[in-house]
Amino acid sequence: MLQDLNNSTICAPATAVGHGAIAVIRVSGPSALEIVSKIFVSLKGRKLDQMKGYTMCYGSISAGVGNLLDDAIVAVFRSPESYTGQDMVEIYSHCSPYIVSKILELLVSYGCRYAEPGEFTKRAFLNGKMDLAQAEAVADVIASETEAAHKVAIRQLKGGFSKELAQMRTQLLKIVSLMELELDFSEEDVEFADREQLKALLEKTSSHVSELISSFKLGNAIKNGVPVAIVGATNTGKSTLLNALLGEERAIVSSIAGTTRDTIEDTMNVGGILFRFIDTAGIRRTLETIEIAGIERTYFKIKQAAVVMLVLDYTRQDDFEESVKNLTGNVNNAEQQVIILLNKIDEKPVAVTNLFDGGDAEATTPEENISKVCDAISAIAADAGINPIAILPISAKKKTGLDELRTILTTSQSAMNTGVESVLVSNLRHYTALKEAYESLLKATVALNENQPTDLVSQDIREALYSIGTIVGEISTDEVLDNIFKNFCIGK
Amino acid sequence: MLQDLNNSTICAPATAVGHGAIAVIRVSGPSALEIVSKIFVSLKGRKLDQMKGYTMCYGSISAGVGNLLDDAIVAVFRSPESYTGQDMVEIYSHCSPYIVSKILELLVSYGCRYAEPGEFTKRAFLNGKMDLAQAEAVADVIASETEAAHKVAIRQLKGGFSKELAQMRTQLLKIVSLMELELDFSEEDVEFADREQLKALLEKTSSHVSELISSFKLGNAIKNGVPVAIVGATNTGKSTLLNALLGEERAIVSSIAGTTRDTIEDTMNVGGILFRFIDTAGIRRTLETIEIAGIERTYFKIKQAAVVMLVLDYTRQDDFEESVKNLTGNVNNAEQQVIILLNKIDEKPVAVTNLFDGGDAEATTPEENISKVCDAISAIAADAGINPIAILPISAKKKTGLDELRTILTTSQSAMNTGVESVLVSNLRHYTALKEAYESLLKATVALNENQPTDLVSQDIREALYSIGTIVGEISTDEVLDNIFKNFCIGK
Repeated sequence: MLQDLNNSTICAPATAVGHGAIAVIRVSGPSALEIVSKIFVSLKGRKLDQMKGYTMCYGSISAGVGNLLDDAIVAVFRSPESYTGQDMVEIYSHCSPYIVSKILELLVSYGCRYAEPGEFTKRAFLNGKMDLAQAEAVADVIASETEAAHKVAIRQLKGGFSKELAQMRTQLLKIVSLMELELDFSEEDVEFADREQLKALLEKTSSHVSELISSFKLGNAIKNGVPVAIVGATNTGKSTLLNALLGEERAIVSSIAGTTRDTIEDTMNVGGILFRFIDTAGIRRTLETIEIAGIERTYFKIKQAAVVMLVLDYTRQDDFEESVKNLTGNVNNAEQQVIILLNKIDEKPVAVTNLFDGGDAEATTPEENISKVCDAISAIAADAGINPIAILPISAKKKTGLDELRTILTTSQSAMNTGVESVLVSNLRHYTALKEAYESLLKATVALNENQPTDLVSQDIREALYSIGTIVGEISTDEVLDNIFKNFCIGK
Repeated sequence: MLQDLNNSTICAPATAVGHGAIAVIRVSGPSALEIVSKIFVSLKGRKLDQMKGYTMCYGSISAGVGNLLDDAIVAVFRSPESYTGQDMVEIYSHCSPYIVSKILELLVSYGCRYAEPGEFTKRAFLNGKMDLAQAEAVADVIASETEAAHKVAIRQLKGGFSKELAQMRTQLLKIVSLMELELDFSEEDVEFADREQLKALLEKTSSHVSELISSFKLGNAIKNGVPVAIVGATNTGKSTLLNALLGEERAIVSSIAGTTRDTIEDTMNVGGILFRFIDTAGIRRTLETIEIAGIERTYFKIKQAAVVMLVLDYTRQDDFEESVKNLTGNVNNAEQQVIILLNKIDEKPVAVTNLFDGGDAEATTPEENISKVCDAISAIAADAGINPIAILPISAKKKTGLDELRTILTTSQSAMNTGVESVLVSNLRHYTALKEAYESLLKATVALNENQPTDLVSQDIREALYSIGTIVGEISTDEVLDNIFKNFCIGK
């Protein structure tokens, strides 16, 4: 790995594919200046190898004498003051796919190697320009779609998270070194470390790790979207609602190349908060095996949701009670929020039953009827032990009530924008490592409380240190690095 | 126009939209450095207004205290040594749509204006950094998909075309000033200019203009694709063939954002040459008005094509004679190339007639039968006065014979790659202006030959000068400029 780093010079386009004004091509490695010199001629006769770092030069890229490819500006960065820490050259050419591919071809013909995804950032990590958590934040910064996601990512990039981890490691190392000092003198039966003080230190660190673990729920929701399950009986208009909600946004989102359709169809920025809408199979009583499987999946998705939106069909009031009661036991109202949507209010109820006394007969206007139906739903919910944050009449088809729904959704997650101010864990790899660290610290605490031999306690703390060390990359394997960087884009 | 140029500072993203490693944001105008200073803080405390041109600086973009938006590098360019000729700053940030839009928002909040499409290049033109033909070439360079198109565009960008026009203008100005000198002394009846010499000069220039006009056919084919009309009776598989030809390429082309589908479905780079495939309505005898209109359109498209591909259906040999004869009178074999494709060779002829003696009975293998049918087609073509460059058996459905077809197409246009070495007119606006200039020069020549008054001749030449002047933009109107630059991308 390090040998390749010192011997090979890599190149890649660093700007998005497409027609734009400028394309940036990055070159990094020991021969960066030498290789670019072979294809670039400065207008004023300047030599790249005489240029200082952070200076630019105008000239032209040629594929041999008389074969002008493009006018270009090149910028020189000198090791270690560059993104990768190596000598680097950036070429700014016209952004034509033809030109970019030709320049890359030329660079390769003179000895460059096409960079792998994330290889520039990997080199930055290997050269000590940033730790692994910061390197991962680079990809998060690029992918951020909301202010909150961007804040979490940029804080991680700037080392906020790494700093907290470093403090933790210092604490643990202090404990462990005191303990291991005892071991060295074990025959003399001295005790350097005050056990009570050790316990207090350990508890403080454990509780810090625990806080970070808890922050993952918010961090993950900010990064990947607040999960919102759309549930309800079949044909209540769940998919129409999803499309109506995504409709206006979709055009904007899909214009971003490289985003997979699967993802963009489900997430949406509502009032600065990213929501992940999960359409579910309609729930109805059935004995069919296949349908039961679908319904079980629905219940599973409900459990993972932060918000459950139950869609009722205004024209089928017979179903209301069963639909609401289906949530009982499947929704944890203490942690999950429920919104009940009365859909299809643009249609006339075709089978009005005595949901409230008298039905249509007692209501003088459609609005009054809808309002009375909402009251009735409220009573059904109370009976079922469900406490919705809103019961909202809408028409997904006519797009009425959707603005109110968006406001309700945003308000329901307003805590997200305040939580953003502290360090949040948003990366599954970090979350897993922290959980492992927590387990080890728990074992250490138990061992300490039970007055187990010092070397056992110390071993548990060493394991916690190891787990935390994997986050910033003090401990890392090729496999871990490959896994992290393969999801980066080319040129980053 | 010039007032806005000197008073306003514009900003725009200069890289393609999407997720990439780096985004470039351009700022140009008198307040460029001052405005960027308000959002950028250098890591080493450097001040933008003290930076030299062509130097860069690392730091961070903030939306107010404690509100870090991104790490970024900025580059400073000083008037007049910049793309637009004005003070410019380029900001290199992470390429996240969120960050880019926030940076632009900040710039606008401090007094920048969002640039219109092509406005940077328009400023370059207005500041005399390039002439109008060069400015137009910028868009062509970016859009070029083949080596030939790229060469034509880059030569125009580097002023090759402008230089030829300048020589022409010098010649014409020489003629016209000699003539106008005579006019000043008209009462003294002197003749400064030798009429024969004037005629020779005029003829030389006219013939140069005429050459440039002729080059448009090649230049346009290189830029917009060699027009290939696919014709034939209904249901011979024309659309299947088009899809088969475009199939593999389409995925590649459509991954380039910003290209309109209409265009990409029809053009394809075959062996380095851009072809524009034109599917036509099937031709058959009819009395229906609507169909006649469709067929007339087909004949019109045939006339514009450089290559006519006639598709015959192997299973319907009855139609061959009529299909081939339909080309007679519609195809100009001296200028247009004909390829006859015997399609559906994977199927068995269902209605074998005596296209050749004995039909299937005489052929021992399917291959032999196909070969004999091709011979028969050759004879039919000869009878019809059509001289095809190839008669090729294919199956569009099974994709057999397509590689051969591609080779035939590429070979048929091999002259294109040699023609590229001289200056080619590839822009319709230039072509139209040159035609106008040619008309004026023709009138001047006639007037000179008829010994018409000097002031009339001189007026014709002045008109030619005017037409040529519009190409490089010595004469231009807001309307012309708007028309040219509105098709540019933002940030260029």
